[in-house]
Amino acid sequence: MGFVNDFDHWAVGDNLDLASWDSYPIGFVEKFPFTEDERNRWAETSHPDIAPFHHDLYRGVGKGRFWVMEQQPGPVNWAPWNPVPRPGMVRLWTLEAIAHGAEVVSYFRWRQAPFAQEQMHAGLNLPGLDELSAGGREARQSALDLENLGALKPCAPAPVAILYDYENHWSTIIQPQGRDFRAEELAFRWYEAIRRLGLDVDFVRPGADLSDRKLILVPGLMHVSDEALRALKTAKGIILFGPRSGSRDRHFQIPDALPPGPLQDLVPLRVTQVSSLRPGLADAVSGMVSGQAVRWRESIKTTADILSRFSNGDPALIAKDNIHYLGCWPDESLLTNVIAHMVRKAELETVPLPPHVRLRRRGDLVFAFNYGPSPWVCPGEDFVLGGSQLEPCSVAAWREGATPGG
Amino acid sequence: MGFVNDFDHWAVGDNLDLASWDSYPIGFVEKFPFTEDERNRWAETSHPDIAPFHHDLYRGVGKGRFWVMEQQPGPVNWAPWNPVPRPGMVRLWTLEAIAHGAEVVSYFRWRQAPFAQEQMHAGLNLPGLDELSAGGREARQSALDLENLGALKPCAPAPVAILYDYENHWSTIIQPQGRDFRAEELAFRWYEAIRRLGLDVDFVRPGADLSDRKLILVPGLMHVSDEALRALKTAKGIILFGPRSGSRDRHFQIPDALPPGPLQDLVPLRVTQVSSLRPGLADAVSGMVSGQAVRWRESIKTTADILSRFSNGDPALIAKDNIHYLGCWPDESLLTNVIAHMVRKAELETVPLPPHVRLRRRGDLVFAFNYGPSPWVCPGEDFVLGGSQLEPCSVAAWREGATPGG
Amino acid sequence: MGFVNDFDHWAVGDNLDLASWDSYPIGFVEKFPFTEDERNRWAETSHPDIAPFHHDLYRGVGKGRFWVMEQQPGPVNWAPWNPVPRPGMVRLWTLEAIAHGAEVVSYFRWRQAPFAQEQMHAGLNLPGLDELSAGGREARQSALDLENLGALKPCAPAPVAILYDYENHWSTIIQPQGRDFRAEELAFRWYEAIRRLGLDVDFVRPGADLSDRKLILVPGLMHVSDEALRALKTAKGIILFGPRSGSRDRHFQIPDALPPGPLQDLVPLRVTQVSSLRPGLADAVSGMVSGQAVRWRESIKTTADILSRFSNGDPALIAKDNIHYLGCWPDESLLTNVIAHMVRKAELETVPLPPHVRLRRRGDLVFAFNYGPSPWVCPGEDFVLGGSQLEPCSVAAWREGATPGG
Repeated sequence: MGFVNDFDHWAVGDNLDLASWDSYPIGFVEKFPFTEDERNRWAETSHPDIAPFHHDLYRGVGKGRFWVMEQQPGPVNWAPWNPVPRPGMVRLWTLEAIAHGAEVVSYFRWRQAPFAQEQMHAGLNLPGLDELSAGGREARQSALDLENLGALKPCAPAPVAILYDYENHWSTIIQPQGRDFRAEELAFRWYEAIRRLGLDVDFVRPGADLSDRKLILVPGLMHVSDEALRALKTAKGIILFGPRSGSRDRHFQIPDALPPGPLQDLVPLRVTQVSSLRPGLADAVSGMVSGQAVRWRESIKTTADILSRFSNGDPALIAKDNIHYLGCWPDESLLTNVIAHMVRKAELETVPLPPHVRLRRRGDLVFAFNYGPSPWVCPGEDFVLGGSQLEPCSVAAWREGATPGG
Repeated sequence: MGFVNDFDHWAVGDNLDLASWDSYPIGFVEKFPFTEDERNRWAETSHPDIAPFHHDLYRGVGKGRFWVMEQQPGPVNWAPWNPVPRPGMVRLWTLEAIAHGAEVVSYFRWRQAPFAQEQMHAGLNLPGLDELSAGGREARQSALDLENLGALKPCAPAPVAILYDYENHWSTIIQPQGRDFRAEELAFRWYEAIRRLGLDVDFVRPGADLSDRKLILVPGLMHVSDEALRALKTAKGIILFGPRSGSRDRHFQIPDALPPGPLQDLVPLRVTQVSSLRPGLADAVSGMVSGQAVRWRESIKTTADILSRFSNGDPALIAKDNIHYLGCWPDESLLTNVIAHMVRKAELETVPLPPHVRLRRRGDLVFAFNYGPSPWVCPGEDFVLGGSQLEPCSVAAWREGATPGG
Repeated sequence: MGFVNDFDHWAVGDNLDLASWDSYPIGFVEKFPFTEDERNRWAETSHPDIAPFHHDLYRGVGKGRFWVMEQQPGPVNWAPWNPVPRPGMVRLWTLEAIAHGAEVVSYFRWRQAPFAQEQMHAGLNLPGLDELSAGGREARQSALDLENLGALKPCAPAPVAILYDYENHWSTIIQPQGRDFRAEELAFRWYEAIRRLGLDVDFVRPGADLSDRKLILVPGLMHVSDEALRALKTAKGIILFGPRSGSRDRHFQIPDALPPGPLQDLVPLRVTQVSSLRPGLADAVSGMVSGQAVRWRESIKTTADILSRFSNGDPALIAKDNIHYLGCWPDESLLTNVIAHMVRKAELETVPLPPHVRLRRRGDLVFAFNYGPSPWVCPGEDFVLGGSQLEPCSVAAWREGATPGG
């Protein structure tokens, strides 16, 4: 399912041939801590990173192989509100899963059941009738699209990796210290920021080989295992650590030399105290990147380069060579600026996207997805699906030799 | 009590000589899902339809006979806040009950108890003293008013009937599908809209004879029994069905031919899917009537006349002869326009009223009630109570041969 | 702890040599029912009356002797959000406790524990290191300040007494009648209003001798015991009773002669009914003092002098000689005006203060505390701590023979 961190998916994946998940993009909009504005904005399409976030995560968990076991084919019955997806979205979600590497997209369910608890859950067929539902007609169209696309190549490793750690989630749930410090939310927002630049992303586990990645984002890694540290030390790309990184040892204790503990081998700093900030509070950050710290702000002593400072002059973003440490929860503006800075430093080519458009590469194909409400002009030429004018709730794909961000 | 739908009052009424209820108009303002603005607006008078809604409902349940067993005589002790009613309101509520047909208005309680849990509940007398309370003095005045009015005639059947079904409430509680789909709230709003036109209303049960009604409102009837269908078929007046009508059979299943199931005998349509809309969402409705769909919006296929459409062109309000089906939860504007259209089609004479004034006929008397805050000019001549200038929190009554709306 | 009324502290204090309490000024900001604006305003300093309110209360409970057993030395771990106190606040809180008469200020804890549940609770020393934390350095500075101040004289009795009754709290919890009638909140707001005038305050128990007080505030005293009545009768100062005073006898019953029961010996009035007002409602008060009644409004019959009236002309503030009765919960404006009127009548000299500055006398010293964010000019000359320009988050003290308000 979406936004579930109750067990270590990496460990479970070790014993599986492939991973699979249940994709209910609209229902999950009510589950994630979006603002009310965002919830209204994405109520009938889903947010354009909800399904992709999980596709990329479960592709990693499945060592490259994943299925969508249950794809939402219309309104469901279990969210507080269950709107009908905008026309085109069932097809969009289907092709999007394929673009992210899904081997199978299976819908739940074949026919809407006229009885019992799930009778308001849409199916590919109307209840009691041999007649396709609106979603069913889009599923049929998706199958035709796939035939047109022909055989698909596997997904290449992405230039950007997000290190995703389940233990980190549990640690922040056990000891949030600020009511709205939600590790999952932070990881999602970092993913959203990097995808807004048209970049593909792989999720990797702590300890995974990082030597070929150009940019490594570590939104949350409270405990840095020996394995994780080794992999980080051998990385040649740009690395960005988020707040609370290295702040606990394997016994859930504060390291003797203070946080970030073992990461002090990579970048010299000590976090002497932390402030969790209620929703009305913020601290301005300025310097090489600017914006605001919200929710969480660390007091840092460092001999590294100070790229940006809090309002009282304390270090906010520091760097030593390729290693960066951000000592706060960044608001949208600061996050956008920090990520842009990292991407520039990693020399990645980007395609800045509006909030409602995303790109994803598979083999030599570039897919574009428009979550609406306005059209977008695709930067492609050799279209195999759609054309250069990408309408709301639709999909395009084109062939490209060397695509930025892929 | 007010806003209680836990059992089928119609069935219980079968074994009773008369119905009675406990009228706490101010306490119920906090119980009903009003907006905060409405709660503030009506905090010290009650909303002008709360007591009447129940008077009309229980008059129906009591086959024409009902009592007010407990009338609020001042501030009570059990609501989150318990304001003193504005001067005049205890008398207004008393005479209003009489106007709606009450045979008895009994107050709770005779004397305010100085002890125990209910010691803050006002009585007609002050605690421990042989002295009338403010409410007690108004009750005495009401008795004098009744003497002046003399013998009262029974209530005539109203031209407008609202079909009120308890099973429908339970169905929406079991399966709301949208968090704010509250059947009771929808019925109350339809009642409010029709009463704002100065019309009298009877509540009737499914299966009741409808042949003499000029307008029949069916805000909620998920399961249409054979009896209910028969009565609807023999009706000659205008009928308006609300959303979800006929959407379940007697086994709580979606009908084989899709909703509205048996109502397809009356008006040809199929509901293929439904959208429940979170509070930030709305869909514009335009055509013969306009406004917005909120909370609930159905996808309708029909060969009937399409009077209004949703923003994408889908049918919103349809009609075949005298039968109408509204496929959404209407906002205040749409509801007002739909009801006005039905009333015109039913050729009912109306008296458009401001939000704080209501009329009610009993025999040859027309009563007017002003919930404040501004005066209103009564359209009567032969006054038996008050005069043509109706002050806030006061009552007027006049004799009229043929009154519009009665 | 702060804002705890679960037992009668006066009774417990009878058996103790001194009282002590745990002062967590920032954590308590989230505990008290402040507005969101206030919570944001005081998030990093605490509200300037939270610690003093408790110092003054526990000095009374301890018959003049009290300790701070646990002083917050930095961010804690148990509030919803735990910001770092602004630099200077640990020293300010320490010296403030001393100014209010504390014999000991002990910090919790010596060293931040790197393990277990409280590992995010700051200490005077950093975890695992022989190094003072930011708070530890301020504690060291406070010790130096104390040495400079030399031997301190005891606190003199304050000219203003607040009668604080635990039974009253329990009564309003058992029977609030309005959801936001919180006795503790009312007492705190009265304390805040009097301290905004630069005055020192003692808390006293019902029955305590009041003969030397110039002003006696009784924000809440539902049951007036024989002892309490005797003490009030012998008082020569100005007395102000708040709403609900005398409204219950010792059996928790409404007095036979109606509220305020035994207080009718002091001021002739009867409360015939009360209105609890939801947050959107208010009633204007005008006359000698003006503002708004919120939350609670009483209907008063009286032959005493009527100083101010509600919008309908009913008495709001009445007086007979030195005795005053306020029949409502005053909003900030009305409270400020009422308290100012009492202070004038009591002929107390005042120093009107901005919201973020407070004064407190001990012996011949006057202390000033600035909770920020802007500087304040102290009205002193012979400074023993700081100087006439009082910066945010800092403390000043000066010697003065006869100080207004002390």
